[in-house]
Order: sequence, then structure tokens, then C-alpha cells
Amino acid sequence: MSAAGATRELAGFVADSRWRDVPDAVRHEGGRAFLNWLGCAIAGCRDDSVERLLLALREFAGAPQATLIGRGERLDALTAACINGTASNRLDFDDTHLRTVIHPTVPVAAALLALAEHRPFTGLEFLHALVLGIDAECRIGNAVSPGHYVRGWHITSTCGVLGAAVACGKALKLDAQRMTWALGTAATQAAGLMDTLGTMCKSYNMGHAARNGLAAALLAARGFTSSERGLEAPRGFLNVLAEHGDPGEITRELGSRWELMENAYKPYPCGIVIHPVIDACLDLRATHRIDPARITAVHVDVHPLAQELTGRPTPRDSLEGKLSLYHSAAIALHDGAAGVSQFLDARVLDPRVIAIRERVTVRVDAALGPEQARVRVSLSDGTAHELFVAQARGSLGRPLADGELEAKFRELAATELAPREIDALIAQCRSLPDLPDAAVLARGSVTASSRREQP
Amino acid sequence: MSAAGATRELAGFVADSRWRDVPDAVRHEGGRAFLNWLGCAIAGCRDDSVERLLLALREFAGAPQATLIGRGERLDALTAACINGTASNRLDFDDTHLRTVIHPTVPVAAALLALAEHRPFTGLEFLHALVLGIDAECRIGNAVSPGHYVRGWHITSTCGVLGAAVACGKALKLDAQRMTWALGTAATQAAGLMDTLGTMCKSYNMGHAARNGLAAALLAARGFTSSERGLEAPRGFLNVLAEHGDPGEITRELGSRWELMENAYKPYPCGIVIHPVIDACLDLRATHRIDPARITAVHVDVHPLAQELTGRPTPRDSLEGKLSLYHSAAIALHDGAAGVSQFLDARVLDPRVIAIRERVTVRVDAALGPEQARVRVSLSDGTAHELFVAQARGSLGRPLADGELEAKFRELAATELAPREIDALIAQCRSLPDLPDAAVLARGSVTASSRREQP
Repeated sequence: MSAAGATRELAGFVADSRWRDVPDAVRHEGGRAFLNWLGCAIAGCRDDSVERLLLALREFAGAPQATLIGRGERLDALTAACINGTASNRLDFDDTHLRTVIHPTVPVAAALLALAEHRPFTGLEFLHALVLGIDAECRIGNAVSPGHYVRGWHITSTCGVLGAAVACGKALKLDAQRMTWALGTAATQAAGLMDTLGTMCKSYNMGHAARNGLAAALLAARGFTSSERGLEAPRGFLNVLAEHGDPGEITRELGSRWELMENAYKPYPCGIVIHPVIDACLDLRATHRIDPARITAVHVDVHPLAQELTGRPTPRDSLEGKLSLYHSAAIALHDGAAGVSQFLDARVLDPRVIAIRERVTVRVDAALGPEQARVRVSLSDGTAHELFVAQARGSLGRPLADGELEAKFRELAATELAPREIDALIAQCRSLPDLPDAAVLARGSVTASSRREQP
Repeated sequence: MSAAGATRELAGFVADSRWRDVPDAVRHEGGRAFLNWLGCAIAGCRDDSVERLLLALREFAGAPQATLIGRGERLDALTAACINGTASNRLDFDDTHLRTVIHPTVPVAAALLALAEHRPFTGLEFLHALVLGIDAECRIGNAVSPGHYVRGWHITSTCGVLGAAVACGKALKLDAQRMTWALGTAATQAAGLMDTLGTMCKSYNMGHAARNGLAAALLAARGFTSSERGLEAPRGFLNVLAEHGDPGEITRELGSRWELMENAYKPYPCGIVIHPVIDACLDLRATHRIDPARITAVHVDVHPLAQELTGRPTPRDSLEGKLSLYHSAAIALHDGAAGVSQFLDARVLDPRVIAIRERVTVRVDAALGPEQARVRVSLSDGTAHELFVAQARGSLGRPLADGELEAKFRELAATELAPREIDALIAQCRSLPDLPDAAVLARGSVTASSRREQP
């Protein structure tokens, strides 16, 4: 790291970055991340929590600058960033930077797309800002991991506000000085507690981060000053929100190593630490044609974090069910599927699923990785089947292919859009760097009839 | 503390509190706190940082629901809360809860007054909500002090968002369940780094807390769920933002001990830890008729926190000057005064003041309290004068009288209002519990001609 300090060095890198400096593989991954995010935002847009958030904020919102993804109402860009950020995390189907457990695209894309509708920029500028924002967010996450998350910080929020500020600052063409202030203003807004998991407020943390990151960039653009060492100062982000945060993680190999290449996409809409368990349950059920009614016991061995984050034996609703190893194992064995409909309130409370859930026991095995699990299912005839999953579907060693990501997008987008509208939106995402105006991506997320109804 | 947990207990207390339960002395102190705050908000309203903040946020703001104090523009209540909160801290002339160094009225009053203009309530309801919000904010501050602040948290922001949520929740008549959610949503938004001191972003931390506290109450009013143990949960506020936070500090003697009675008002618009030094410099200068040109050395002994927070030997502008022991001692000795005009940019850069500043040396004396200081001034004729201040003016042992607070208000309000307008506003503040509509306090802060110009 240079003598300038991590904040200035990062700000200078972002301000100076040119599109030609971004490797093809990173560009491609940026497009995948955005497509995955957009699907999640569309499918989450009518959740009860989003309705309540909109009800609360709408009367305070400003001019119709930006679209609520999937829905079509238009609000000021800051409020739209907040609501779209919240909606896009609601299904727990978003991407994951595995080293930090950050869901990187949520706060960054929500802020950036809302801004794109208000201060137009091209698809290329959008994608460039997106990959830079995600890179900064995850690098800062690396610098505070794992202690920050373990302590109880909701890392997607705390680092997301910084990623959103970087992305929006790049789109606003901030110079290095103003980018430094944007980082300082974002750092002092960094917030989000893991204690909110299982409540509506959990996804709001990310919407709030998107809003505040955008605000930080907008303030910096007006010359609103902040710390110039917001990350590494003795009373800055790394020292206050972490123990011994390492600024070198932020600046090392800037421009040659891209954290977006460490990003994974979920095949199941629930806590990522549960995924290898679901893989095992689905495979065991299919291979051995297990009759759910005959299950007498389900023994699950997991990485310690899985138990810590999702060890909820008696989830009461969808929000808790998505963060319950017990429900996830039970529903996968019961339905032979683990899609959006397997995590609705009604399925979490389904007595047949609960009957299996109550037979699930979880054991922590520190020798397992977070992408690994071992599941043993015992049946009433005395037989038992066991499976070890070495690499969960969607993990870095076994990533979803482009076609699988598009299939996931189609399923999610179908909640709002007609098949032809989905085709059109996928085509736009594929040609993101060639779009003259990135804002079309927001408008394309709304079905034609809803667009006509909105102001 | 009951088995219910600190969050639920505090929420229940606030929801159930009746005006008749609030002692007269607390009511009176609430009025003093508000008057002091209102003066600060008026005098800070045209600072460059406020202009830039307004410039950045205005294009995103909603309907004209609430007044920018002193200025008259009307914006949506959330944005107004943010800008008024920022303005009212700008002069560093606000109140201080000495045990925690929280400036308690800033985030609470900024949020509550903006809400009062949008969802009308009486002056009595305003004052009731204000004292409850401040009490909650300072109790939570007590629970995390001193470690939280020492670590680098800007405690007025981190605890202020909770106080603002409580006050606004009370004004919105939230029941105990929703008040619990409001606290959870406020806790997960708690943010603010001391690293921003000396930049525009420092006061923004408080405006941001005001805005977010109001948002938390508005979300809870719509049934937006959050943690029900936002303060004391293992991954809640006390454990994540502090080491060994003590929930008992929050709930002990609720309703019988009021933290507002520990609130102090500043006689000088700068960091409160500097105040005993200014007292000494002013008294030494007056008593010995010191000619500033003959000063050869100024030796200052202070409490460790004073050096830590304000040990800036070469401040570059007003923002840094207010947090500089060196400038404060020099200007008090030079001017024989330490009012708003002694901390303007031009005075911080005045060569005659700098000449004295360069002769100031600061020594930490752990035996001194934060309200104490010892100053020794040496003169070119070889004489020296020394003074020990045992209790700074404005500290709890030597509080500003009502008349002194009104005089301070008159000086601050004169930046915007005519003398008759100031009289009218003081009269309204004196009769706060009898006002049918608390919103008149915001409108009364704007001079008649500006009111006519605004939408």
C-alpha cells in the first residue's frame, strides 16, 4: 500500500479506471451478476415487507425519477434505491461473495440503476461502475473478515454502502478527491446488525445501504467534505467496525485481481450455508426414491457457520424458514425441490413438512467447509442412506452456467413479465455494454400494462 | 431488568408513559434543551455545509411538509429532519449529556419537529416525546460508555438514532410492540465515526441519525417488523457496537431517574472539553488586563480526553478550530471572548491569533476532571499568571441560568430574526406545553419576509 493510505489509493484507482482496463472475464461476470440481481428484484417486488416499506416512505418521496423494479411506480432515486435494494434481497436468492458472505450486487446495483434513470449514462458506464463498486465492496469486506461478520455486523450492509458509493461516484465521474470524500461519507453511515435476521428489517439493511451509498456519492459531487482516511484512520471503518482490519486487502493487486471472479449465484432461495444440505437431500430423495412419509430421522453434519446462522429448529414464517437448516432439509426431502414456492409461509407451516423437520438433527463438524455437508436419512424399514456433498451447486467449484442463470432469471421474472418481455430484457442484459442508456433496464422490468398505469 | 429484555422494557415504558408521570423539573429542563437547540439550528442554518447538503438533497426531496429551521424552505419531513439536524450541530454550541458526551437534543428535536409539521400534535405531546427520546438516548449511551466513544463511535449519532425513534414513535402513539420494532430498526441503522471530526460530515452524522430515527418510527407504524431485542441481543446494538454493554443502565429507575437532568448547555461554540480552558483564559485576561501582544507562553493542563479530541495545534478552518484547544486558548486570550465570531474561518487563520496559538503547549493531567483545567500565561516582562478552573461555566455544578440561556438564544436567533420575532419565539418556547400545535415553533424560526417567499 502506498503512503497515501487505502482510502485515497482506492479512490484514485476507481477515478482513473478505464473500461479497457477491465478484463473480459470480469465484464462477463458483471453481466451475470446484474442479470441474477434483476431477477431477484423483480420476484421480490411485491412482498408484504416491500408493500409496507413503500407505504411508509411514499408520502415522503420526491419526483418520479426512478422505477420500482418489477412494479413500475416511480419515486425519487434515493427512495427507489432503498426499496429496490430491499426487494432484491427479500427472496435470499441473490449472489454471494463466498469469502465474506457479502451479497455484493444488491446494494451496488440498486443504487446505480436508480441513479441511471435520473442522471443518464450508457450501459458500458453502468457495467464499469458496477464491477468497480462490487470490487471495492468485497475488498473492504476481505479487510474485515471474518471477525466483522462473526461479531454480528450485517456485512452486505456495512460494506455495501461503500460499494454503492464507489459505483455511483464512478457513474457521476467524481475525481479522486471527491471519491475519497464519498468513501468517508459512506464509511460513517455504515450500519446493519445481524440481529435483524428473520425480520423484515434484514433486507431493509441492504436497501438502506444502497440509499446511503448513493447519497454519499451525491454529497461528494457537491463538494461536501468528509474524512480522507475513512477506511484506515484510527477512528475509521477498519478500526471501529473490526479488530485489526487489514488495509492491504483493499489495495493489493488493484486492477489485476477482481473480487467479482469470486462471486457465486444461488440455485436455492435461502441462506447459502444451507445449500450443500439441500443438494444432499434432493440427490438422496431422487437416487433412492425416498417416500417422505417413511422418514424416521435426518442427520445433518454442517460447517459451524451453518449452525450458527441457520440453526432455527422451529421457523414461524417464510423469513425464518429461509434461514432454517431444519425447514430446508425437510422441504427438500418432502417436495424434491427447493425453489421460491418451497419457502412461502404456508409451506413453512405445512404439518407434513413440520413432521419431517422435527426428525432433523444437526451436528457441527469443524472439518467440513461451508460448501460441504453430510446428510443421512433413516427410513421406517430400518434402511438408511447417506451422502456427502463436497461442493455445493452454485459454489465457485461448481458454478451455475450462463444457461442456468438465464433459466433462474426466467423463473423469477415470470412473476411479473410476459415471456416476450422476459426475452427482451435478457437480450438487453446480454448487450449491456452496448446500450446507449442503462435506464432501459429498469423500465424493461415492468410489464407493459403496469408501465402505462404509472405516472 | 425484567425477563422481557431491555428493548421491550424500554418500549413498554415509553408507550405507557403519561405526561403526569413526568416531574416538573424534567419538563422545565426539556424546555431549556429545546430553546438551546432551536437557537443553534437557526444560527447554523446558512453554513456552507448546509447549503451543499441542501443542494445535493433538494432534487430528491418530497412534498413541502416541514420547514428548514431559520431558512424557510419546506421539504419532506425526512429530508428536513436531516438538514435541520446537521445545521443545529454545525456551531458546536449544542447541549451535552456529560457522562456520555452525547449532544442529546440534536437528533431528537430535529426529527420530532419535522414530524410535528407533517402529523400535527400539541406542544405538550411534543415536549413529552422530547424528554422520553432524550432519556432513552442517554440511557443507551450510558450502557455503552465509555468504551463505545473511546473506540471511535460518534455517540450522538449512534445513540441519537435510537432517541429520535423513541421520540417520533411516542408522537406517533406507537404501542409497545411497534415501539420495540422502532428500536430494532433504529439499532440496525446506528452509525457514525469520530474520524469525520473536522469535516462537514461530522454534523451530517447527526442529521442522518435524525432522519433514520424518524424513518424507523414511521416504518414501525406501518407494521414493518424488526428485532424485538435490538438492544440486548447477542448480535444487537450493545454487543456489536460496544464491549460488555450493560442493559441494566437502560432500564434501571425508568421514570424515576431522568437523564435530561444531567444535561449541560455550552457557553462557547466549540468542543465542550475545551470549555474550562476558555474560562481560565478569559478570567486571566480580564483579571490581569493581559495585553495579548506580550504573551510569551501559554501552558495548559487538561483531562486526557481534551487532548485526545481537541489536540489540534494547527487548525485550518472553522471546523477544525472548534475542535482545537490551541486556537480556543489563543482566541480567548486575544479577543477576551469566545462566541460564534471567534470561530469563523478568518479568525482561525488570523496571524495575530496564530502567533499566540504557536506559544500554547498542552499537557495531559489525569488527575483533572473533564470540566477542569489549569492555565498559566507567561508575559514578556517575566511575570506569569496561573488559574485553576474547578468547574467550567455551563457544567452541571455551574449551569447556565434560564436568563443566560435566553441571552444565548437571542444572540443566535439574531442571525435570522428581528428582535420582535425573537421575543415571540421565546414566548412560544416558554409556553410549549400549552401550544395547540407544536409546528408553530418551526414556522416561528423563519423571519416574516422569508416565510412569504417560500412555497
